[in-house]
Parts: sequence; structure tokens; C-alpha cells
Amino acid sequence: MNPKISENTLFIDACLKKPVERTPVWIMRQAGRYLPQYQAIRRNHDFMSMYKTPELAAEVTLQPVDVIGVDAAIIFSDILVVPEAMGMELQFVEGRGPVFPRPLREEAQVDKLLPVKAVEQLSFVMDAIALSRKNLAGRAPIIGFSGAPWTLATYMIEGSGSKNFTHIKQWRFARPELLHRLLDKITDAVIDYCRAQMAADAQAIQLFDSWAGILDEEGFTRFALPYARRIFQAIWEPEVPLIYFAKGAGGWLHHLRECGAQVIGLDWTVDLHRARQVLGNATVIQGNLDPTALYAPPETIRRLVRDMLTTAGQNPRHVANLGHGILPDIPVEHAREFVNAVKEESPRFHIRGL
Amino acid sequence: MNPKISENTLFIDACLKKPVERTPVWIMRQAGRYLPQYQAIRRNHDFMSMYKTPELAAEVTLQPVDVIGVDAAIIFSDILVVPEAMGMELQFVEGRGPVFPRPLREEAQVDKLLPVKAVEQLSFVMDAIALSRKNLAGRAPIIGFSGAPWTLATYMIEGSGSKNFTHIKQWRFARPELLHRLLDKITDAVIDYCRAQMAADAQAIQLFDSWAGILDEEGFTRFALPYARRIFQAIWEPEVPLIYFAKGAGGWLHHLRECGAQVIGLDWTVDLHRARQVLGNATVIQGNLDPTALYAPPETIRRLVRDMLTTAGQNPRHVANLGHGILPDIPVEHAREFVNAVKEESPRFHIRGL
Repeated sequence: MNPKISENTLFIDACLKKPVERTPVWIMRQAGRYLPQYQAIRRNHDFMSMYKTPELAAEVTLQPVDVIGVDAAIIFSDILVVPEAMGMELQFVEGRGPVFPRPLREEAQVDKLLPVKAVEQLSFVMDAIALSRKNLAGRAPIIGFSGAPWTLATYMIEGSGSKNFTHIKQWRFARPELLHRLLDKITDAVIDYCRAQMAADAQAIQLFDSWAGILDEEGFTRFALPYARRIFQAIWEPEVPLIYFAKGAGGWLHHLRECGAQVIGLDWTVDLHRARQVLGNATVIQGNLDPTALYAPPETIRRLVRDMLTTAGQNPRHVANLGHGILPDIPVEHAREFVNAVKEESPRFHIRGL
Repeated sequence: MNPKISENTLFIDACLKKPVERTPVWIMRQAGRYLPQYQAIRRNHDFMSMYKTPELAAEVTLQPVDVIGVDAAIIFSDILVVPEAMGMELQFVEGRGPVFPRPLREEAQVDKLLPVKAVEQLSFVMDAIALSRKNLAGRAPIIGFSGAPWTLATYMIEGSGSKNFTHIKQWRFARPELLHRLLDKITDAVIDYCRAQMAADAQAIQLFDSWAGILDEEGFTRFALPYARRIFQAIWEPEVPLIYFAKGAGGWLHHLRECGAQVIGLDWTVDLHRARQVLGNATVIQGNLDPTALYAPPETIRRLVRDMLTTAGQNPRHVANLGHGILPDIPVEHAREFVNAVKEESPRFHIRGL
């Protein structure tokens, strides 16, 4: 078979606003626990070993392409590799998630954070990307990613999950200069890390700003958006789509138009029709079915996909996805129905050449 | 002193869009743990005993009026009294919050829920309201409240706090008819409860829809908003302000205009200037400083209050508040600075007679 013919460029084409025959689809956290094939590997390896071993990371990265048929693979990794490379000890505690045992609380700790040489320190990610790309053999493009600076700073200051985000908010309201210094350092590290992923042949980059929604609007425009924008400007290349997913930023869509990414990821609280009105036609939108909708029976999932595609509209400049990561207890056949429904229901929204 | 002259009608007047000399201010969860006077009582009584004993509830209700000088008192109670009156066993577990040991999971459990006779079953609330009003002697009006049906259903189905809200979302997507039946029953109970509070002389009613933001937009317009609206229509009286606080609904402000309440509570993610543009001039807005902003030093709090008042605009039809409940570790003097700053900075935004 001619590899040029078999290459699946649907996702990249849609991100670059080229005409496509149907809406591409992938799922955040698609390489994850809902897949029995993932669990089989996870039983013998802890989470950190999995993403630090390129062979394992690449294997897991490819699973959703093979098992549920998504149109893009996202490298299996964790957003906290950057803080770790900056010198922070990171632990994954079973049942509790990631923990920094010594979170940032003092100015001196910020000063001590190290610049990142991703090519050396995070070579396991680049090796996993290269290996994934080789093994994918064009069946799907590979997406690299990083945490956005605000979200990484939140983890680094809180140390673990949080209910009220007391510590980062104290910095936001009482120590803004120190917070800006920290965000600057993280931004430099993320730029280096994204460039290294692109050099390793990542074909798109997504920034996850998972904690954007804990901010107020002014805070978002001061502490989150400018740093994401600086990264996108620094790493911009015309053929590599950049995606900004700021969870909880649905009230501030008007600010996202100027974020510097071609693609805006949307959580499930945002109506796609309204997003299109606010973002204009120059932006590609990604998302956004409620991840818990995949608990519904397959026929309901198909109806909800149809609704999502309808709100995205005609010639939609849309990448289908969930509005957040897939949950670990979703049946595989429900995830597959989501993917199949997008593939089967979306062609009528695309008229070639328009 | 003439009691008519000393009566503080500022909050009610502002809610009813009468001209006022300054912006009124109160704080969600103002009768709470950040107050040493509250903690002194709490040391000798568990939380449930406090709200079920009218003398204690009334004492705690008045504390923030005396200690930090707010313009309205909200009755000290809990939103989960309604599910308890419907027949669900409720426990408060130290360090974990409220728990329903037998959450709703089966249709038969919904059928067994009882209609509520609030005047009898929740007489402790009405007694606390009457006693608070007597002891306030016009220094501040008293606000009654209830959880909104969607939020109460979430607690009743999840049984306790939740990360992904798996169970209520399964109902939302896979068993919508059953969920509507449950919401209907809760709505009837809340209507009865609100009417009883108004009969006991509550001077305003706030519905808390704390979990609105876990929904998608379509879900909000189907499972949350219509039930809140039905309540507001049923209990409407021209001189009793009704307040709807739907947390996380900042992306759907356009739907809130038709909710049937005169006052819309806003969380801190919503810019007040934008809220005014979307909601129009007929709506009074309430909120919305980030509760964590009260960690900042007093001079910063004052600046942030000034910013909030500025975005609310001239002749603002605004009730100052936080964007969610005050946190337990906020210093009392910071809460007082918030209140004082509103009192001192807001008169210039009000021009009498306009």
C-alpha cells in the first residue's frame, strides 16, 4: 500500500482550516484506564515508569488508535514532568494522584528553580514521540503537549489537589510579583519543552490550562492568558497546529480569540454555537461533549454527538472531542460509539471546497 | 430612638431597584467559622444542633451584623434540611461534611420520598427566623434560603461531595425522566419551605444552585433553570426580593435573565460589566469578589472592592457580596475591611434620584 495514500491527515487538515470530508475526533486522556489493554500494562508498571519508559509510553499512546479508532494520538505523559525537570521532587501516591512533597511556599524556592533542557532531561518524552510516530506509520498524527504555566504554578504551589486553592490564590492576590516571576520561569521551561517535542516530530501541540477556571476574569487575563500566548508565539510554525484548552474559561471566550493558537479547546459547559459567534470563523474549535455523557447508552451517545455536531454547524472548523478527559469507568464500547458516531454523522456537515 | 428611622432597609431597597445612597453588602456564609464568636458556640454544639436549636441559630445569625457590620442577615441553616424532611437520613461527619448514608440510586427510593410540611417539620427554621427578626430589631433584614432543586438532587443522588458527579450525571444522560420526577418532587417541597419562611417574616429568599456549573448548557436549561423558575413564580410577592445564585453559570448569563428572580447572584468568574451588558438594566446583580481575595492585605482588599464597584458601574443596581461563601481561615479584620470598603467607596457610584 502506498504510505502517502494511507496517511490520515484529517486532524491536521481540520486544525489548519483545510477542507475535510468529515469532522476528526480524538479524546482527551484517551490512553487511559478505561482501556483493558492499558490496564494490562498498568498492572505491571507504576504510572511514572510507564511514561518514563519510551517503549511503554509509545505502546499505550497507540492503543486508542487501534482500539477505538481515533484520528490523532496524544503522547502518553504527564503535565508535571516540567516542574520535575525544574528541580521539584514529584511522587505519584496510589489513590491520591500526583504530589509535590515540598510545594513552593517561599521566594527562595522560586529562585532555586532550574531552567529546563528538555532534550536532555525529558529525553524519554522525545524518544516516546519518535517511537510512536514510527509505529503509527501515518495512521494518525501525534500530538505533543504541556501544562500551561498558570496550571503548572497551581500544582507547584498547592502541592496536590485542592478544594479552595488557598495558596496559589494568596500569591495571586497578595504576592503578584512573585507569582509573575514564577510564571516567567515556567514559561521559559515550557517553550523549551514544546520546541523539543516539535523537533522530535510532534505534529501538533496542546497546552492544558486545567485550572484556568479557578481564576477571576482579570486574573485570567493577567496570570494565565499572557503566558500561554507567549508560548504560542515562541513555538509557532505554520504547519504545526497549536491548541489551547483553558478549562472553565467559558465566560471569557472573547479573550481566547487572541491567545495565539489556531485551535481553542472548549469544556462541556460552552455551547459550540455561542463559541462560534464569539470566536469568529478564523478559529478552529475543539470539544466538547460532557465526559459523563459516555455513561449513557450508545443510542443516547449517538444522539448527543448529533446534537454537538449540529451546534458546531455547517463547515464547522471543528475537532470533535470530549469537554475534559475520559473517565476511568466508561465502557470501551461507549467510547467507540462516540468515535464512530462522529465519523458517521459528521460528513453531512462538510461540503468539500466550501 | 424612633424605630422607623433606625431600620436598615438598604438591602431590600436595592433589591427592589429603589434609589439608595450606597451599595448594600453582605457575605455568603457570613455566619461561619471565620468568626471567633461562632467558634465559641461551635465548640459546645455540633453543627446540626446549632441550626436545629432556634436560640443558637438566631444568635449565630446576628453575629456578622454586630461584628463586621453587614447590611443583611441570612438565617443560619443548611440547604439539606429539605431532603431530610423528605425522608432521607442526614449525617454531618466531622471533617467530611454532610453525608446521606443511603443516597438515591433506585426508582423506588424516589417514589418513597415524602411531601414536605415545612411549618411542622422545619419549624426550627421558622422559629429561628422569627427570633432573629425580633432580636435584629430592624438593624438588618433577614434573608431566608433554600437549595435549588438541581443542587439538592445532586446531593441526594451522590450522597456526599463528589469529584466527577458520576451518579447524577448518569441520571442526567441515561435516566432523564426519573431525574425530572425527582426534581418535581423537590420543587414542590422547596416551594412549601420558602412560603413557610416568608410567612415567618423572612424579608428576602435566596436559592443556592451551587452545582449548576457541573452541567452543560442544555442540561442547565432543562434540569436546573426551569425548576428554579417554577419556585420563583410560585412564591413571588412584590416586596420580597428573590435571589438566584447559580454558581458556575457565567457562560449562560443570557438564560438567567428569565429566571424569575429580581436579583442574580454571580460567582467571581463573571465580570460585572459584562454581566450588566448581558442581563440588562432591569436585573439587580449580587456579588462577586473571589472569596480567596480576602487573604490579601487590607489595602489590597480595598483596591479590589473599588475595582468591583467600578465594573458594577454608575447607579449600579448592585448588592456587594463575595462570589461564593467566605472561607473559614479568613481573618475577621479582612472580612470587616471588605464590608467597610463597600460602605465607604460606594456612595460616589450612587446619585440619588437617578
